[in-house]
Amino acid sequence: MTNQSLANVGVIGMAVMGSNLARNLARNGYAVAVYNRTTSKTDAVIAEHGHEGDFRPSAELADFVASLERPRRIIIMVKAGRGTDATIDSLIPLLEEGDIVVDGGNAKFQDTRRREEKLRGLGLHFVGAGISGGEVGALEGPSIMPGGSVESYQALGPILEKISAKVDGEPCATYIGTDGAGHFVKMVHNGIEYADMQFIGEAYVLLKALGLNHTEMADTFATWNTGDLDSYLIEITSEVLRKVDEKTGQPLVDVIVDAAGMKGTGTWTVQAALDLGTPVNTIAESVFARAVSSHPELRAASQQALSGPDGTFQVADRDAFIDAIRQALWASKVVAYAQGLDEIRQAGVEYGWDINVAEVAKIWRAGCIIRAKLLERIRSEYAAGNLVTLLEAPSVAADLAAAQDGWREVIATAVRAGVPVPGFSAALAHYDQARAPRLNASLTQGLRDYFGAHTYRRTDAEGTFHTNWSTDGSEVAAEDTH
Amino acid sequence: MTNQSLANVGVIGMAVMGSNLARNLARNGYAVAVYNRTTSKTDAVIAEHGHEGDFRPSAELADFVASLERPRRIIIMVKAGRGTDATIDSLIPLLEEGDIVVDGGNAKFQDTRRREEKLRGLGLHFVGAGISGGEVGALEGPSIMPGGSVESYQALGPILEKISAKVDGEPCATYIGTDGAGHFVKMVHNGIEYADMQFIGEAYVLLKALGLNHTEMADTFATWNTGDLDSYLIEITSEVLRKVDEKTGQPLVDVIVDAAGMKGTGTWTVQAALDLGTPVNTIAESVFARAVSSHPELRAASQQALSGPDGTFQVADRDAFIDAIRQALWASKVVAYAQGLDEIRQAGVEYGWDINVAEVAKIWRAGCIIRAKLLERIRSEYAAGNLVTLLEAPSVAADLAAAQDGWREVIATAVRAGVPVPGFSAALAHYDQARAPRLNASLTQGLRDYFGAHTYRRTDAEGTFHTNWSTDGSEVAAEDTH
Repeated sequence: MTNQSLANVGVIGMAVMGSNLARNLARNGYAVAVYNRTTSKTDAVIAEHGHEGDFRPSAELADFVASLERPRRIIIMVKAGRGTDATIDSLIPLLEEGDIVVDGGNAKFQDTRRREEKLRGLGLHFVGAGISGGEVGALEGPSIMPGGSVESYQALGPILEKISAKVDGEPCATYIGTDGAGHFVKMVHNGIEYADMQFIGEAYVLLKALGLNHTEMADTFATWNTGDLDSYLIEITSEVLRKVDEKTGQPLVDVIVDAAGMKGTGTWTVQAALDLGTPVNTIAESVFARAVSSHPELRAASQQALSGPDGTFQVADRDAFIDAIRQALWASKVVAYAQGLDEIRQAGVEYGWDINVAEVAKIWRAGCIIRAKLLERIRSEYAAGNLVTLLEAPSVAADLAAAQDGWREVIATAVRAGVPVPGFSAALAHYDQARAPRLNASLTQGLRDYFGAHTYRRTDAEGTFHTNWSTDGSEVAAEDTH
Repeated sequence: MTNQSLANVGVIGMAVMGSNLARNLARNGYAVAVYNRTTSKTDAVIAEHGHEGDFRPSAELADFVASLERPRRIIIMVKAGRGTDATIDSLIPLLEEGDIVVDGGNAKFQDTRRREEKLRGLGLHFVGAGISGGEVGALEGPSIMPGGSVESYQALGPILEKISAKVDGEPCATYIGTDGAGHFVKMVHNGIEYADMQFIGEAYVLLKALGLNHTEMADTFATWNTGDLDSYLIEITSEVLRKVDEKTGQPLVDVIVDAAGMKGTGTWTVQAALDLGTPVNTIAESVFARAVSSHPELRAASQQALSGPDGTFQVADRDAFIDAIRQALWASKVVAYAQGLDEIRQAGVEYGWDINVAEVAKIWRAGCIIRAKLLERIRSEYAAGNLVTLLEAPSVAADLAAAQDGWREVIATAVRAGVPVPGFSAALAHYDQARAPRLNASLTQGLRDYFGAHTYRRTDAEGTFHTNWSTDGSEVAAEDTH
């Protein structure tokens, strides 16, 4: 065999994400080795799409590996979890030093760190690459977030950048950082996606409570999609709301059971933030909102027992209130992005990843589910200065200031009317907590010192202190051992 | 040596919690073996408190173990984490079959499960016992939440019940369940404690915004403590607010730095709930409120950049609004207890613990930090019927219905005035989500099906479905593989 007959890159796993990624690679001129444990699946993909490019199917994993040029670039697209470990284990004996194994699934970043360490010890590169964009994105250009060694990116990056989505010719793929950095960023991407969808859902329920029919709601979202809220999720919200169910003639969204599923990444985003001590209450509320929706016993018992306003309300100026909902949605979205990006920034510090937040925003501008006009602004703000939080960017702060009257009005109205707005409320609470000159945490510290001698700091002196609450009430300097 | 000369129970670790627990045991008539790695600490405890009862100090761990009657009952009171494992490992070779090792620290319940399994394999009993009440509780009667084998509780229970706090003669200690059940319940106790303190802090900031001075605030909490809110934390809030700093003459709470610390259990409570899919948004907001308070860069940048209302407001009837704050505090507290107890109930199912929620409420009525009049009511409601959620208990639902106008009024006012109320808002959002006939989750499912083919269920048919959004818009029955 001459080198020309070897494939440039390989894909393992011919389910829809894997086969679409392989087709994307082939369409971009690469010779793509493909393999699936069940060969019939590979055969079906080749039968249907083989004409699209240079595919090199193998029925045996060893043949698949042998068909690749070195260093081998192998992208695993199998169900996350044990399947990934099993695939890696079967690959290891077939690989040679310097080969690159890529996991393109939604792995836990801790698993990716573990796998990277293991393969590094064997002289292999392991790249955890977050891939967002769903089935269509995989085929037509996803957003790709690869984490691993710089060396592996030199061999892999040009391919990933070529098949990724583009914004004005710039690829939506870039090197994120070592080991689990890519999967961490993809995890937070998904956490932000949860918040985006929760906010959209709250806006939808409020528009419905205002009395808009589904066509009017669809039109409203379509209009919003021409402004600051311009984004994929707003766009498809309009389409989903406009969809009429063929069987019943009702709006489809009224026929769908209102119990939302989860696949883990939102949950992980909150758990990882808790480990870091980074506030992501908007994402937490979005995950818990899905949890309530999927808790039928809680809902049945509560609907039976609990009373309150019926969720409808009147406003003096309907158009003005609709615009206030838009402001609440936009401002809340900004807070969720700020929280998610702060989580990434802090994780970069904690795990030594040195992540460039502007570059993260840059590769989210197209291809992925949360792609939005806002992301170009986020990119430029982070590129312009070293932001602690997106909220402090001058243009963002100014627009939040302009949006906040509507934001507050919408929440106050919803709270009185019995419309649940956990996401909007959490976002505003974060805004007001972050800017507050004094927080109630001083009382918390006083209480903790009272019942647990946890000590406190003083605003006017260094060190930690304890009040002898149960004896003479005197204050003593304390070692900070609690 | 005759059996009479052997000690009844042993305590390892003579820091303040361990020595106070040993003194409690001795005061209750038990012969208590005590040991500390640094002997001088043991000597100091005996020198100061030896006259209080029958202490049996040992300088060597082997002598300590040999001084105990069988089955040995050994309570470890050392800093949670590696210290616990090290202590267990040094004990193991000295123990005999049937001996009982108790961890009285704030261990992660997963660690307790691991340790219990290990010791069970060696023929030993391991009991993870949550102990709440702080230093004073350890000495005068804590609330004790032991998890482990039923057999171990037969030997240990009478002692724990004797030294625990009492309510009308009933002990605040009971068998919780196997392996990690006790530490899980203690963890959730602490999570509820976080929420309790966050709600109190929000009430405090609102009273301050209304213009009350610290004496008036202290009086308000003292008055609240005579009614439905009667609880230890409300009582000590009054005392902390009343405290004048000796150095400055200012209220102490104004001198304390407003950055709240955390020791992990609140964070774990939320992480465990995320694993279970149980909504605990009130606890999450309380943990994240502390995180914001302890994030100085975020706060400095936000204070500089963000504008908004100044956190003050006027009301027509000050006394009425103060009572509305009381209602918001009480209703939010009920939601937090409902969420925490739901987490315990679901953990019982998930981990096979068969936890009696009424008994949990019973042993929280005294001794522990969250002790409150409300807990007797919770106990009786759970004892009377098999509640899915505390919220559905008739008397609770009725009082929530009565409190909700004030609750909504307070949040709406705070939101407009720029006073952050993440806890009150989360609690109300949970209330309104749980009772809502329809949630925005239907739209979420529509969107997830659009971009990821995640499928949805229909209200009028079994099975799962997918709409071919990008082609002809037809609906197809789908396998639920996503």
